Amino acid sequence: MEFILEEAIPVLERTPAVLSALLEDVPEAWLDAREGPEAWSPGEIVGHLINGEHTDWIPRARIILKQGSYRRFEPFDRFAELKSDRELRDRLREFEKLRAGNVATLRGWNLKDKDLDLTGEHPGLGTVTLRQLLATWVVHDVSHIAQITRTMAREYTEAVGPWTEYFRVLQREARQ
Amino acid sequence: MEFILEEAIPVLERTPAVLSALLEDVPEAWLDAREGPEAWSPGEIVGHLINGEHTDWIPRARIILKQGSYRRFEPFDRFAELKSDRELRDRLREFEKLRAGNVATLRGWNLKDKDLDLTGEHPGLGTVTLRQLLATWVVHDVSHIAQITRTMAREYTEAVGPWTEYFRVLQREARQ
Repeated sequence: MEFILEEAIPVLERTPAVLSALLEDVPEAWLDAREGPEAWSPGEIVGHLINGEHTDWIPRARIILKQGSYRRFEPFDRFAELKSDRELRDRLREFEKLRAGNVATLRGWNLKDKDLDLTGEHPGLGTVTLRQLLATWVVHDVSHIAQITRTMAREYTEAVGPWTEYFRVLQREARQ
Repeated sequence: MEFILEEAIPVLERTPAVLSALLEDVPEAWLDAREGPEAWSPGEIVGHLINGEHTDWIPRARIILKQGSYRRFEPFDRFAELKSDRELRDRLREFEKLRAGNVATLRGWNLKDKDLDLTGEHPGLGTVTLRQLLATWVVHDVSHIAQITRTMAREYTEAVGPWTEYFRVLQREARQ
């Protein structure tokens, strides 16, 4: 699919509800599940998504839209806000609120094709367009939902007994 | 994780809400996304899940619980009900209703450890326990959610530009 803003926004605005439906009030064991010792648990992934709302997507889009002479993004700290002492329910509410605000900001910009072609400098990837940044925001959301559900599936790798062979997700090496 | 019925039921009962949050009223292009020519679209996966409610999980559990002399399951037709002329919204409502009924049935059985050890005959895998069947139901749910979101992510493989290298999900071969 080509990136079309009107198709991307509905995905971005659904993510908080998807995560709440999936994780809110589920037994604790699911929230602590990990694919491997270095992999993130579903609870940590929610923290990572909150951090993205604070520091990544909209702040980077602002740098691009400002079109100043210095358009280099701050590196995104993938490990910030992973851990928290707060209840998952509160973190889900925070994510919902932050995302709603960020989607409102995005809609408010009323971006046209020429805006989506504007560029910024990614610290690792070089020149990127606003269109690519926004497409990445969508991919980041849905691939973390995929990661959470894959992590949950793998918790039952032993429990399913002979059915393991019918699920490719249970046969691959653990990876993040 | 070991299979514990009280941990499994909350996942099973959340799946319809997760799918509705993710797919209801999203732009059509997402519903028709496929990882490859033979792969299922998100809309088809909902049809497949509806079929599972009709023919797979609870009917097989009944065969096990009945403990008749013939306990061989009907083969599960993975391709039944994939296609439909009905609106996705109606199919999501149907899945929600079927799942709610099936979870109520499961709860109503008030299964004990000794019940979970009872066995049936899978046409391809041989002897399986009720515990393994129910664990597989959970894995089937979450791995299809993972499949849907992975499929959506991959639609933007080109659109993210240089960010492709940060997402393993965008680098693997298409597979169902």
